[in-house]
Amino acid sequence: MAEHGRATECGGQSARKDLAAMMVPLGRALMAAELPVLEAHGLAMWAYSVLLHLEDEPVRTQSALAQAIGADKTRIIGVLDDLERRGLILRRPDPADRRARLLSLTPEGRHLRDTVQSAIQHRENQLLARLPAADRRGFLNALRALSALPPEEITGGD
Amino acid sequence: MAEHGRATECGGQSARKDLAAMMVPLGRALMAAELPVLEAHGLAMWAYSVLLHLEDEPVRTQSALAQAIGADKTRIIGVLDDLERRGLILRRPDPADRRARLLSLTPEGRHLRDTVQSAIQHRENQLLARLPAADRRGFLNALRALSALPPEEITGGD
Repeated sequence: MAEHGRATECGGQSARKDLAAMMVPLGRALMAAELPVLEAHGLAMWAYSVLLHLEDEPVRTQSALAQAIGADKTRIIGVLDDLERRGLILRRPDPADRRARLLSLTPEGRHLRDTVQSAIQHRENQLLARLPAADRRGFLNALRALSALPPEEITGGD
Repeated sequence: MAEHGRATECGGQSARKDLAAMMVPLGRALMAAELPVLEAHGLAMWAYSVLLHLEDEPVRTQSALAQAIGADKTRIIGVLDDLERRGLILRRPDPADRRARLLSLTPEGRHLRDTVQSAIQHRENQLLARLPAADRRGFLNALRALSALPPEEITGGD
């Protein structure tokens, strides 16, 4: 939602903008930067998200996947149907629970995911190349560390 | 929207997550971390955004403000009414255009903004304190530089 202003000091005490005020619009722009790459490969953002998450574990149920990517189950079904039709994922019944379905990437799905991610990160690296090397390294280290924290540790505060 | 997985390498070529996949959820958590501070001072996120943006320039019209914070004009009117009622902002007719209204912070508005921002950044600094100094410095430098770019330069790509 809102972007917050105030680049620097002006009588007040703050020498920097709030972190969310910098990160939220930047994250949004980075997501927008992915769209042309995704479109070129016929992938919606949710479909890309599915392909990325299926790599974390070889198989998982549809509901576990929906939860992991923050999608509601209804929305994800159509995305999975399409990916399966295109031979990018496999769905098969869970031997342990016949009502559940296990998901996995096909070699084609893995290949497409790698191609798309590589193109996305190529663009990102061009952007990162504008930064001095030390800042780039610090940025990526910090981003990796902070984004690995459970959200409660960020929202928790004092 | 979607968060993307794949922490590290696993046969594919990527040694890191996509930037948006790290930044979007982190930005969302940082925004959530602001909420208790804002609530404690009776401010909605949009109201805080208004207070921050009015500092950028001493006065501006309601439509310019709405555009700057990415709000629609309808939504912003009620927020401004409330801030004015509480003596935090002033609205007066623009001498150059009597249909337009110029906005400014009152001393009370400036004080509240500084108090709230200081509390928000205090919490953020506790989070940043977990990082090694070099990463913290690089992170803030990079964030400042990247968030100052016009969004087109991020979405533009090659």
